[in-house]
Amino acid sequence: MDTTPTLINITRATVSKIGSVDFENLTFGNVFTDHMLACEYSNGAWQAPVIKPYEPFMIDPSAKVFHYGQAIFEGMKAYKDEHDDVWLFRPDENYDRFNKSAARLAMPEVPENIFIGGLKALLNIEREWVKKGKGNSLYIRPFMIATGSGVIAAPSTQYRFMIILSPARSYYSGEVKVIIAEHYSRAANGGIGAAKAAGNYSAQFYPTKLANEQGFQQIIWTDDATHTRLEEAGTMNVFFRINDTLYTAPTSERILDGVTRKSIIELAARENIPVEVRPVLVSEIVAAAENGTLKEIFGAGTAAVINPICGFSYKGKYYELPVSEDTFAAELKEKLTNIQYKLAEDTFGWTVKV
Amino acid sequence: MDTTPTLINITRATVSKIGSVDFENLTFGNVFTDHMLACEYSNGAWQAPVIKPYEPFMIDPSAKVFHYGQAIFEGMKAYKDEHDDVWLFRPDENYDRFNKSAARLAMPEVPENIFIGGLKALLNIEREWVKKGKGNSLYIRPFMIATGSGVIAAPSTQYRFMIILSPARSYYSGEVKVIIAEHYSRAANGGIGAAKAAGNYSAQFYPTKLANEQGFQQIIWTDDATHTRLEEAGTMNVFFRINDTLYTAPTSERILDGVTRKSIIELAARENIPVEVRPVLVSEIVAAAENGTLKEIFGAGTAAVINPICGFSYKGKYYELPVSEDTFAAELKEKLTNIQYKLAEDTFGWTVKV
Repeated sequence: MDTTPTLINITRATVSKIGSVDFENLTFGNVFTDHMLACEYSNGAWQAPVIKPYEPFMIDPSAKVFHYGQAIFEGMKAYKDEHDDVWLFRPDENYDRFNKSAARLAMPEVPENIFIGGLKALLNIEREWVKKGKGNSLYIRPFMIATGSGVIAAPSTQYRFMIILSPARSYYSGEVKVIIAEHYSRAANGGIGAAKAAGNYSAQFYPTKLANEQGFQQIIWTDDATHTRLEEAGTMNVFFRINDTLYTAPTSERILDGVTRKSIIELAARENIPVEVRPVLVSEIVAAAENGTLKEIFGAGTAAVINPICGFSYKGKYYELPVSEDTFAAELKEKLTNIQYKLAEDTFGWTVKV
Repeated sequence: MDTTPTLINITRATVSKIGSVDFENLTFGNVFTDHMLACEYSNGAWQAPVIKPYEPFMIDPSAKVFHYGQAIFEGMKAYKDEHDDVWLFRPDENYDRFNKSAARLAMPEVPENIFIGGLKALLNIEREWVKKGKGNSLYIRPFMIATGSGVIAAPSTQYRFMIILSPARSYYSGEVKVIIAEHYSRAANGGIGAAKAAGNYSAQFYPTKLANEQGFQQIIWTDDATHTRLEEAGTMNVFFRINDTLYTAPTSERILDGVTRKSIIELAARENIPVEVRPVLVSEIVAAAENGTLKEIFGAGTAAVINPICGFSYKGKYYELPVSEDTFAAELKEKLTNIQYKLAEDTFGWTVKV
């Protein structure tokens, strides 16, 4: 694949912020690196991308992103190995999904040389921001917004693609208790749930706030029509272990085709952990919790990698999961992150050197 | 109600653009007036609103509106009567709905003195932009966006409320043929379809583009679970006339509680036009089209007021509606706009003088 960036105009920051960053005490997504990539789409074509100091930019109050929500993003990470090489994890998957999201929101696709080539050029400049050591990473946020002005409800003709970078340690911490959604939903059949679209997330905030007030950190989303099928956990895909088999819902128009999700499925297969990709019913998980065969629930996503869930609530009853040192979540997270940090052989060809 | 604005800092534009605007040939939503209102929310409180020249503003690339879609809006209009007085139509309805949208997206409510009071102060400055004569109006776009920075998927702590104004003639023109949605959807049960949230609109663009390519201007949206119930038409509520009765779906979590919709229902009652608010099935509309009892379909919304639909497609078959001079759509539009333009007595108390 041609990931050579077209001529990228680079303006270097005069001073780096890196000395002022406490890398041991990062909270997720608050600190950004010195530079960002920006690329404008106008007159039916992408213009030359630029890399420049991270800074606010000017936008019209009538920009369509503010009124009609044409906004998509991706979440990726860069890792540094013991030889100071910087690695990406399956960037082609994020690139493909980004353009699927773009199509679903009637936005232009971003060429590979801008998305992948531009990202590599940006990472090259920001190598110092990728810290060694497991748990450290540089979170990558490519996104596209509709910048065209005018309040008619129609797709924009102007867009801006950007990549910003944020040093990260871990996304979630502490025990995660979840509540199974009985009323609210994150996605419609024939909707945009499978797209990484900004609008999907704002829909979750209020129900999640209600869950928080009841003492739960996240919601396990169910299908909106019947609330009988388990679909996602918070902003992650979700896996259930009954006895020694993992279950996760098939991707659909409502469910994000997560890169961590698909990597876990492939990794589990390699490790001879049975995985069944099929609709997972609330009723069978409740039954398994009651008869003691439900061993684990965990979320899977780029930010948190694998996030164990210690219990769930459904129809006002709380089900505590067994505590175990020997979990699939721990085993799969260890094996997956070892591949990401180049501490184990990448038998899948998932890692890409920057 | 206290709609007195708290101290509004006003900065006047040095030159007005009004002389360069061709008010006879406006396309919807492209031209904005000289001033706008802006108000910042931070530290848990709304700051003093400002009125200043319409202009782009600075925003951080990590602003939550770009990543998680916290963005809501309203659509309203101001009208000028023959005495040069400027009138709003049911602004309290828009104000209430705006704050319902805010709550659903975990955004702060906007106080009445900022929303209504600020709007009146802004309109007072822009009176010249409201042109006399039926069909002329000043379209009002209040909106709120999440301006807080950081890419963690959680509600913002900073917001910006703005009002921008755009002189308008009419929104739609020409014959409108629609296609009934059989696959795509605009809203989920337990989702944000009832909110005027930016994310709802971007979800419609791609399906609408597909409809356009087939020769249809808009989509009539159906419930996402079964696609058997008719819910909205494009970005409008929708009414069906079978024999001499109007039918429209009840509002729900999926359906916007339109101000024009509810005004039409009240107006029809006054005019002794029977209206039934109940679920409208695709099957009954197809049957009525086939047996000749389906007389009219029209959309209802602030921008277009009432927009007649001349035919619809379902499962590949096109149903043409009868052509008539004597329609409910024409009668109700005439009566409703006469109230808005103060050409008829406002027996409902809907109009509010600025």
